[in-house]
Amino acid sequence: MTTPSFMDMALEAAEKAGQAGEVPIGCVIVRDGEIIAAAGNRTLTDRDPTAHAEVLALRAAAHVLGSERLTGCDLYVTLEPCTMCAAAISFARIRRLYYGASDPKGGAVEYGVRFFAAPTCHHRPEVYSSVGESQAATLLRDFFKARR
Amino acid sequence: MTTPSFMDMALEAAEKAGQAGEVPIGCVIVRDGEIIAAAGNRTLTDRDPTAHAEVLALRAAAHVLGSERLTGCDLYVTLEPCTMCAAAISFARIRRLYYGASDPKGGAVEYGVRFFAAPTCHHRPEVYSSVGESQAATLLRDFFKARR
Repeated sequence: MTTPSFMDMALEAAEKAGQAGEVPIGCVIVRDGEIIAAAGNRTLTDRDPTAHAEVLALRAAAHVLGSERLTGCDLYVTLEPCTMCAAAISFARIRRLYYGASDPKGGAVEYGVRFFAAPTCHHRPEVYSSVGESQAATLLRDFFKARR
Repeated sequence: MTTPSFMDMALEAAEKAGQAGEVPIGCVIVRDGEIIAAAGNRTLTDRDPTAHAEVLALRAAAHVLGSERLTGCDLYVTLEPCTMCAAAISFARIRRLYYGASDPKGGAVEYGVRFFAAPTCHHRPEVYSSVGESQAATLLRDFFKARR
């Protein structure tokens, strides 16, 4: 599987989240070329303010590996992670972060607090942005257009 | 119950976490003068990188209230929240945040990214620091001293 294919799986998780009435954001976590966890946003479904796609995928991957440190794992997410998720990604020791659309309003990687550049960030993943960007942005745009 | 008493309950949760081999941090969430959720750190026990005291208490409180928004709820935690937890506290719409010791290395309220002052923070709780500070700091200091 190549890089775009993992992002395709994250986009699929995002679409499913949107169909369930959630903000359409999806995430997969990959280790040794295989997806070990996938999740879409579930804040409304789970009634859990922390149930962002990344947090859910991180928790699932940690469960699969039996460790709170996801050494050697890469994370693919359709939108630039928020402040909570960027910090969670750092705590989990994610190796590489790939994301789709940028998020000027809520992002924390290239926008906002730019957590990975902060002195209180003690593990920085390699970051690859704009992966599958247009599809992720279209998904979100259509979702919010339909809501208004 | 007065303010110090709720922090006493958070300190009790912190002590229990320390006895279980976790970093001794504890948290309670209060609504209408009653504790609706309490938790200590469980990252090692749960093998979950997101299982900080605040995240666990927020999730538990949301479950109790049946809503991802904890309107009218106040959160007491023994240490200055980290970046992940500060953002989670904001997402959950916590009304007032009381914390004990400051955390120059990992904090995100008065140190680090100072999330509540960031333009990407869309809900800011009222913040009260140094509540039960000396006890919280002693707990942490003794824990790390014993580990070295």
